[in-house]
Amino acid sequence: MYAGIVEEKSVTFDTDLRLESGRILGPVTLVYETYGKLDEKRSNAILVTHAWTGNAHLAGKYSEDEQKPGWWDAIIGPGRLLDTDRHFVICSNVIGSCYGSTGPASINPKTGKRYNLSFPVITVRDMVRAQKLLMDHLGIDKLLTVLGGSMGGMQALEWATQFPDRVASAVVLATSPRPSAQAISLNAVARWAIFNDPSWKKGEYRKNPKDGLALARGIGHITFLSDDSMTAKFGRRFSAKDGLFDFFGQFEVERYLFYNGYNFVDRFDTNSFLYLAKALDLYDVAWGCESLQEAFEPVTAPIQFFAFTSDWLYPPYQTEEMVQALEALGKPVEYHLIESSYGHDAFLLEHETFAPMVRAFLEKIGTGD
Amino acid sequence: MYAGIVEEKSVTFDTDLRLESGRILGPVTLVYETYGKLDEKRSNAILVTHAWTGNAHLAGKYSEDEQKPGWWDAIIGPGRLLDTDRHFVICSNVIGSCYGSTGPASINPKTGKRYNLSFPVITVRDMVRAQKLLMDHLGIDKLLTVLGGSMGGMQALEWATQFPDRVASAVVLATSPRPSAQAISLNAVARWAIFNDPSWKKGEYRKNPKDGLALARGIGHITFLSDDSMTAKFGRRFSAKDGLFDFFGQFEVERYLFYNGYNFVDRFDTNSFLYLAKALDLYDVAWGCESLQEAFEPVTAPIQFFAFTSDWLYPPYQTEEMVQALEALGKPVEYHLIESSYGHDAFLLEHETFAPMVRAFLEKIGTGD
Repeated sequence: MYAGIVEEKSVTFDTDLRLESGRILGPVTLVYETYGKLDEKRSNAILVTHAWTGNAHLAGKYSEDEQKPGWWDAIIGPGRLLDTDRHFVICSNVIGSCYGSTGPASINPKTGKRYNLSFPVITVRDMVRAQKLLMDHLGIDKLLTVLGGSMGGMQALEWATQFPDRVASAVVLATSPRPSAQAISLNAVARWAIFNDPSWKKGEYRKNPKDGLALARGIGHITFLSDDSMTAKFGRRFSAKDGLFDFFGQFEVERYLFYNGYNFVDRFDTNSFLYLAKALDLYDVAWGCESLQEAFEPVTAPIQFFAFTSDWLYPPYQTEEMVQALEALGKPVEYHLIESSYGHDAFLLEHETFAPMVRAFLEKIGTGD
Repeated sequence: MYAGIVEEKSVTFDTDLRLESGRILGPVTLVYETYGKLDEKRSNAILVTHAWTGNAHLAGKYSEDEQKPGWWDAIIGPGRLLDTDRHFVICSNVIGSCYGSTGPASINPKTGKRYNLSFPVITVRDMVRAQKLLMDHLGIDKLLTVLGGSMGGMQALEWATQFPDRVASAVVLATSPRPSAQAISLNAVARWAIFNDPSWKKGEYRKNPKDGLALARGIGHITFLSDDSMTAKFGRRFSAKDGLFDFFGQFEVERYLFYNGYNFVDRFDTNSFLYLAKALDLYDVAWGCESLQEAFEPVTAPIQFFAFTSDWLYPPYQTEEMVQALEALGKPVEYHLIESSYGHDAFLLEHETFAPMVRAFLEKIGTGD
């Protein structure tokens, strides 16, 4: 069953946030949603963390009229993987984003103007520090689990390594401990596409610089799919309206990238896109440590990892490096390599495959009851 | 030994070229270079075909002062793989390019102005039709071999399938029989980067639209390398001059893409880049046929194929489809999968690995004597 009618909540914290860069951000607002009820012991909370362009609207609908439910509705609700009859599920929009939490499009209280590029560079660790303020606010001492894919998985890793006493387990999907040069390069050309757009104006735009942002998103889409899934979906079909020998004629895959790229302009802020891309590239679970093993030393929560065979953005070998480091330390870890042609997007699409495994994991570690 | 001092040659044909699109292109000029001497029987000629942004300057130097020899000098010269003591080696710049052959930057004799976007969309088959005019001009009835990688390999395939009586063998490296949706999508975003540049002016620029072309080339570089080679070359190192928490700070891989992208602007015409990208995407060896097998039916020349394990632009499975189709027809075919971390660029860099195999192939089929 689906999670029903939900509402967006918001909290602004009293304390400023000291960022990894040494800079101070404040006041910090987080937008979040919750599903299900927090029990009296405040012991049934699960945090779901979102990816790059995600938001707090994880599940349910704001009203019956809303066309689509939240972005990962399929796994949240009564009787679903994250069972809202038993669990209190939380999703919060990360700092740096544009869906209500403090980000570059927010008003800087010191100037009365949008931060734009005066917003500090943030890291995934900073996002999790802000989430911890939210857990304090909600009175949740220990999360049953933190579950997320891609940048959401990075947040789950930060919870497990930075705040080990605050999480009982973590589920990490399609995540890299530190994106490779290839992944960085694909974000680099996406950034470049925006920098090239004259209407970006070094972040001081009034309206989203649409051509640059659409192209940046188009590049992103290539990395979310796979060679196989693109072949299955588009093959070499030519767009019907355009002649094969027309200079501006498009292949169907090309039209798909355009269409989705320009659609994205209506829903995401360009500067947020850039700040979060940077956070992804800077991400290193072993930040400040000599090795993955050193980074994982404090971990107490069992971690369940999922990687997907056709994910070439954060390929399985990167997840396997983490699994090996944790195993070498004798930490409780579980790893599933899922055969899938969906590429990086598989973490959102293959839920029917991984849900039973996550359910078994949560039950085994005693957070499923 | 290197091929010595060479000179660029040029020929303009009397006949117009009827293109695959049905349009007529003329007059057609081809720029070419030759190395070694054509024997009396005109039977020792080898054609080397270039890739996307290549040119006719395959080997040797124009003068002792020239800093670098031609782009594949390592395999051409006295005693080298293509031995200019025995062979007459030819390389011609393709139509559509900007290195002297007729392309969008050429003057349209009918208008007295640059073609720009009035230049017709061309295919790899059209390039080879023009090359055939050059072979007629040079009086070469049959080429000992046609050898090329990437778009050069596509040209070799066109020679073998369209003009089977004109080639005794072919060597095809890092080539696709028809690029996949993923490969098309990567060219699509490169095109998009140029279309977004206001100084492109729908092709009517005076000066190359540098930001768009540089970005397009940057995207190309990602596809020429591999995850492994980028990790080996750049890892996650940050550019020393930029702070990690500087919004505009760059990773080394990012700087590499910028540097090479902007360098490219000085040496290549934007419209040529677009026309050749389109030719790559449109390429299908089975153009007009029902299947690969039907396309390969006319082939008489033994073909030697090389694919490279880390080439994700034209992955080995695509070469293997061709090998299987030829084998099913009982055609003479040889296939080598080379273990390499260099990605698509491996075809240029791994010559020490494949040269002995090419030498043995040419000797076996009797063209090496």
